[in-house]
Amino acid sequence: MPYVNIKVTNEGVTKQQKSQLIQGVTQLLETILNKNPATTVVVIDEVETDNWGIGGEQVTERRKVGK
Amino acid sequence: MPYVNIKVTNEGVTKQQKSQLIQGVTQLLETILNKNPATTVVVIDEVETDNWGIGGEQVTERRKVGK
Amino acid sequence: MPYVNIKVTNEGVTKQQKSQLIQGVTQLLETILNKNPATTVVVIDEVETDNWGIGGEQVTERRKVGK
Amino acid sequence: MPYVNIKVTNEGVTKQQKSQLIQGVTQLLETILNKNPATTVVVIDEVETDNWGIGGEQVTERRKVGK
Amino acid sequence: MPYVNIKVTNEGVTKQQKSQLIQGVTQLLETILNKNPATTVVVIDEVETDNWGIGGEQVTERRKVGK
Amino acid sequence: MPYVNIKVTNEGVTKQQKSQLIQGVTQLLETILNKNPATTVVVIDEVETDNWGIGGEQVTERRKVGK
Repeated sequence: MPYVNIKVTNEGVTKQQKSQLIQGVTQLLETILNKNPATTVVVIDEVETDNWGIGGEQVTERRKVGK
Repeated sequence: MPYVNIKVTNEGVTKQQKSQLIQGVTQLLETILNKNPATTVVVIDEVETDNWGIGGEQVTERRKVGK
Repeated sequence: MPYVNIKVTNEGVTKQQKSQLIQGVTQLLETILNKNPATTVVVIDEVETDNWGIGGEQVTERRKVGK
Repeated sequence: MPYVNIKVTNEGVTKQQKSQLIQGVTQLLETILNKNPATTVVVIDEVETDNWGIGGEQVTERRKVGK
Repeated sequence: MPYVNIKVTNEGVTKQQKSQLIQGVTQLLETILNKNPATTVVVIDEVETDNWGIGGEQVTERRKVGK
Repeated sequence: MPYVNIKVTNEGVTKQQKSQLIQGVTQLLETILNKNPATTVVVIDEVETDNWGIGGEQVTERRKVGK
């Protein structure tokens, strides 16, 4: 029954990688907390780099200087 | 003053259906909790089926086998 | 499969009212979008009035002046 | 280490405005709570006006009548 | 830089289990998406069973009948 | 009409500081995006340090070593 929301920047995450995240997180919750995988929900949000800030800066700008 | 976030898969929800959800949820909060509809906020997120997992599987894959 | 998060101020919501919200929202999603109730998840967050602001003011302060 | 999520309607927010929001919120958290800006995360979500309701109405409809 | 929010029912999750979830999710994001663990944020919310609904029912009630 | 959610660790944030955050964020949204403060909603979540991870570690553990 857990609900997991994963937010990452929108920088080319593949369908396969999303599938691996969904599987991996669902397994963790089963292994660690004995949660039934059948009702574990995982939602992945891909956020534009203009819309994500860390250290007071847009990720778009950080990428330009190799951060 | 309530805030409601509804997440559904992005599978053809119409503008009319969104309007009905907004009206319906706002009315529920007024009826059950006596919340003033004027400041009830409802936000609907439509999530790609590749980005939604349940039972450890992407919804995209589940749809292919009729789940 | 929808996920709904309802945030309200922590001002005496009863167990019965929470049950009504869960039922009501689940039914709306079935009626309007034909979503299977078995996997519809509803999570209610009760937020302290000190931690909720609207109009730039804490709800705690608004309540003192009858807003 | 704070995490801030800002949701606004998708009505032409510029990259520059997003940058100002990220800077401004990060500074507020440093000034008021002494939080280290290096690990303050800000995520901005732009929501379609069909998907945002207030007062039981879609923002799309409210805009048509000048609200 | 990812942000992960895990919501589970408040049914005795230990500090050790939370630590394992944090480590596990952070490693998954490094392994699958090459994300720097130093800035991966994980927030766990424990939700009262009265406040969590699935299948239109409160988890509190489901637990009483062994679901 | 914006909705802002601020998550910080639960480490002694005062009512006054919460009020300043609510005012400050509401003003930023008015100044930068011309948003009407009357319908700007700010919700602050205080998260236990056991439930917040960064760098794969619980904040509780990081605090013990002065991080």
